[in-house]
Amino acid sequence: MSTQYMCMDTLRFLLYDVHQLSDLIAVERFQEFDQVALDIFLDAVKDFSDQECFPYFREMDEKPVAFADGRIIVHLQIGTLMEKAAELGLIGPCFDYEDGGIQLPFMAYQAAYFILDAANNHVSGYPGMTSGAADLIATFGNDTIKATYLDPMLAGKWAGTMCLTEPQAGSSLSDITTTAYPTEEGHYIIKGQKIWISGGDQQVSENIIHLLLARIDGAPAGTRGISLFVVPRLRPTKDGSLEYNDVLTAGDFQKLGQRGFSTAHLVFGEQENCRGWLIGEANKGLQCMFQLMNSARISVGRHGASISTAAYYASLQYARERPQGRRLSADGTKNLDKDQTLIINHPDVRRMLLFQKAIAEGSLSLILQAARYYDLGKVAETEADRTKYHLLTEILTPMVKTFPSEMGRESVSTGLQVLGGMGYSREHILQQYYRDIRIMAIYEGTTGIQSLDLLGRKVSMHNGQAMQLLLTEIGQVIEAASAYDDLAPYAHQLQDTLNLNKDVLQTLAPFAKQGNYERFLADATIYMDLLGTVVVGWQWLKIALRAKEALLNGHSDRTAAFYESKIHTMKGYFKYVLPRVSGLAITLKSQDDLTLVSAKEWTF
Amino acid sequence: MSTQYMCMDTLRFLLYDVHQLSDLIAVERFQEFDQVALDIFLDAVKDFSDQECFPYFREMDEKPVAFADGRIIVHLQIGTLMEKAAELGLIGPCFDYEDGGIQLPFMAYQAAYFILDAANNHVSGYPGMTSGAADLIATFGNDTIKATYLDPMLAGKWAGTMCLTEPQAGSSLSDITTTAYPTEEGHYIIKGQKIWISGGDQQVSENIIHLLLARIDGAPAGTRGISLFVVPRLRPTKDGSLEYNDVLTAGDFQKLGQRGFSTAHLVFGEQENCRGWLIGEANKGLQCMFQLMNSARISVGRHGASISTAAYYASLQYARERPQGRRLSADGTKNLDKDQTLIINHPDVRRMLLFQKAIAEGSLSLILQAARYYDLGKVAETEADRTKYHLLTEILTPMVKTFPSEMGRESVSTGLQVLGGMGYSREHILQQYYRDIRIMAIYEGTTGIQSLDLLGRKVSMHNGQAMQLLLTEIGQVIEAASAYDDLAPYAHQLQDTLNLNKDVLQTLAPFAKQGNYERFLADATIYMDLLGTVVVGWQWLKIALRAKEALLNGHSDRTAAFYESKIHTMKGYFKYVLPRVSGLAITLKSQDDLTLVSAKEWTF
Repeated sequence: MSTQYMCMDTLRFLLYDVHQLSDLIAVERFQEFDQVALDIFLDAVKDFSDQECFPYFREMDEKPVAFADGRIIVHLQIGTLMEKAAELGLIGPCFDYEDGGIQLPFMAYQAAYFILDAANNHVSGYPGMTSGAADLIATFGNDTIKATYLDPMLAGKWAGTMCLTEPQAGSSLSDITTTAYPTEEGHYIIKGQKIWISGGDQQVSENIIHLLLARIDGAPAGTRGISLFVVPRLRPTKDGSLEYNDVLTAGDFQKLGQRGFSTAHLVFGEQENCRGWLIGEANKGLQCMFQLMNSARISVGRHGASISTAAYYASLQYARERPQGRRLSADGTKNLDKDQTLIINHPDVRRMLLFQKAIAEGSLSLILQAARYYDLGKVAETEADRTKYHLLTEILTPMVKTFPSEMGRESVSTGLQVLGGMGYSREHILQQYYRDIRIMAIYEGTTGIQSLDLLGRKVSMHNGQAMQLLLTEIGQVIEAASAYDDLAPYAHQLQDTLNLNKDVLQTLAPFAKQGNYERFLADATIYMDLLGTVVVGWQWLKIALRAKEALLNGHSDRTAAFYESKIHTMKGYFKYVLPRVSGLAITLKSQDDLTLVSAKEWTF
Repeated sequence: MSTQYMCMDTLRFLLYDVHQLSDLIAVERFQEFDQVALDIFLDAVKDFSDQECFPYFREMDEKPVAFADGRIIVHLQIGTLMEKAAELGLIGPCFDYEDGGIQLPFMAYQAAYFILDAANNHVSGYPGMTSGAADLIATFGNDTIKATYLDPMLAGKWAGTMCLTEPQAGSSLSDITTTAYPTEEGHYIIKGQKIWISGGDQQVSENIIHLLLARIDGAPAGTRGISLFVVPRLRPTKDGSLEYNDVLTAGDFQKLGQRGFSTAHLVFGEQENCRGWLIGEANKGLQCMFQLMNSARISVGRHGASISTAAYYASLQYARERPQGRRLSADGTKNLDKDQTLIINHPDVRRMLLFQKAIAEGSLSLILQAARYYDLGKVAETEADRTKYHLLTEILTPMVKTFPSEMGRESVSTGLQVLGGMGYSREHILQQYYRDIRIMAIYEGTTGIQSLDLLGRKVSMHNGQAMQLLLTEIGQVIEAASAYDDLAPYAHQLQDTLNLNKDVLQTLAPFAKQGNYERFLADATIYMDLLGTVVVGWQWLKIALRAKEALLNGHSDRTAAFYESKIHTMKGYFKYVLPRVSGLAITLKSQDDLTLVSAKEWTF
């Protein structure tokens, strides 16, 4: 059984050295924090993860969530965990002081949840969704709503969810039909069904607060007629008690993985007695929800990064302990006199581990990068800076969600391969990671949807300003790395991929200009793969640059080998992952419009 | 629930039109067959698969094989199935008449098992392994052994296995320690343990016959001291009864997928009373076993092809039935007045289906191609032809095993993505395919081992003659396709990838010449990916060529749309898959030797 699931020192290196959290906490909003305080916080999260999360990881898979007597029954540890997570400050820590937060930087929040996810990806969704739901209430709720819900949610007593998907609509939010009927008392009567509600029901929290999208009766069709409501499972009454709010649990989706995390089918208002309270403006619910969706998308990417990280350490441990086969001698034969070698000494096993590491740490760095831009946007003192960091966060978000999910899946599969048959056995943890990570490319908007968002909206956002800003950021790292002889070849390689990106956009742009959006977007998913791969290449070059600087400028707190290992892994990414961009560019520049032809003509 | 799992017309097209089985059956060995007889045989296999295999597919996963009271208990349907499979002629049909076979071409055998695998990949291993084990007995056994075992095995009453892997050795056959002690009665006393024995125990067959590798006491170390034995679970006595042969079942490996297929841990000779009978020459057991391993490797690739085929049809059916979202209108907005569209009308869903289809059918074609070379080698009338087809079979085998396993996994994952959340739900079949196919890159030699075989042995075999023959075969298809204006661009694209392949081999060859085999082989897995991708490109160009010829020459039995769909799918492969070769070539030509460095230095 694997015991290490992440590396605190790598996390701190990424936080402080690569993404300069120390600079960020110098600003007024974060002035209560210094590096010592943040380290204590992260160490406490690590202890909590070691003691309360990781030990239950396999058990939650083997004895999954179950639906019984109208409720979803989850592992009892979830109850303990919600309380302790709240004590640690993991629910709503980024909120303003006045809303019960501690004004923690979003970067530090992501780092903390990364530890939690890596320890046990089945549990972090409960406090995480609660934190996100409370965030919407803090931002859009009036004082009464805030007074009613925030305290028990931040204390971990009440849980929170987001309710978007409906059976007939799936990802198509234009088509949701859940309806809110206004009443004279101010609340609305809610009627409709929601499916795939993560944490949507469980027996351990006193109450569950749903942040729900619905149409006010008579609202316009499409996304412009959607409003946001707070709909508790039990509604608080004037005397302080809780009464049933007609939110029925119809079932739990049994899943391939993440079997400790409930996924509810909920029926609202079957008895016409489900009350909801509007927050934010009527018909502008989707814009409100996007605040939560964006952070949820970052969370999903973070799950991808954390699962691939945990899988890496599990594979690494196995490779260091398992003897098998022999190294080739100079003449290509095997030396039978010697003992078998550990499998980590086989180049192909090392290649697999290097690939895993390059994906896992590159993904984590990308998440922290986006979180840093988010924080910088929040504390920006000028409108120009606010716009700049907002645009950078926006363009990165779909890639932050997608790269760690898609390439993370590939890296976990590679990790399973390191173990051979043992990786396929239910005795070992790898097969659980393999199942768990598969959902990440689906949660909170599939890869296809993220890709339409990236190419269809973000790349052209503000007349291409978001893209321009991103290219400038990448360009700065390329320029800085070019100054070092040993990094320059990699800087040039990254520049070459930017040139391919430019070529591709020049090939595609005329379709958009001609109004042929279907053609423009037909291969958006391939473009996502291309740009995501480039962007993680940028992260790796930045990591290598900081490692190089540390090696040159002295580094009292770590060994040289630590920094050299980061440069080595950068080279691994540039050798085994970044070259994929060449093939993707060929695909994107192809003139064959194969998917615009009716499928009837070729699906024999 | 999906109902179609493969397409008989596509299979027939590949068999007769693309790979010209009709020509093959004109030779003496196969003269009893004509196309009508083969079609009747394949239709019977399809009926059998529809009625006896597919209906039990999900049940075998949900109620998996279990170990109880010293035996592995499998689904009772396996018993019925073994008998009916034997009646249909699925056990040992390729054997000579004198050994109880019907001299079926290996191509037709592969086609039949492809149908079976696609219907239920948990069951085909039982008759398939029995067939393979009986083949070794027929080839290497003496008359007494043949008389004892062949009849009940071919009748499906006794099952067969291959026993290679041991706990301490894994894939490293040099290190097996199971020992055979000679006795004066002629048999050997066997002592040792074997793990991961597919079909290694089950309660439904009267007896189980293990084909086992062991060292005769005192034999040389390494693979040159390994011999092949027949070791029955129950040994036949002179009076015709069966007595226990001290083959103990110690457990069953619970797996991520293929949960209806038993995977035994066996202990031979715990009571010093396990008898084995040598077949083939002493110390040459590995060479004998390679006959079975080669066909087992083709079978594993075929499993990959069949699972990805079944997943394709399941995804296709869902995409044709599920409405969600709207097509973009000319101005890029969604038309809310219209009903939701079926998801198959979204270009990204079509792209995923096209990718699935390109991988599944390309994989099947590759398997039939290798089977054809095998048959041609068997019936060759000259030594030159025998060598030619033997070398072509040898060089293709590792790719036949690997491409459908690795890319098949990717295609099944893509198929799951077509369904979104529903694909991740245990309600739908896709997640089972996703779990099942994952073992194929591990069974019978992992991808890493196949890749060492390809680059380390096969590419340089007979002074590169195998490679040269393969390039000639590919060149002939390129030349023929170049004659058609609409196929010529694809022919050129394939030629370009051959040029990249040549570049790569020229970059790597000096390492082998210098005796630096570790460096030469360090990225063998990447080379496997490259050459496998090229080789399936060759298959697709050949398919498109035959389709083009059929369109030009008249085609009374199929619609034009059928042939056009094959050309369309070829284009899908050439747009979405073949360009990967560019990136792989960059990786292989990289001068960074990252995996020859001790892992201690970078695995932080």
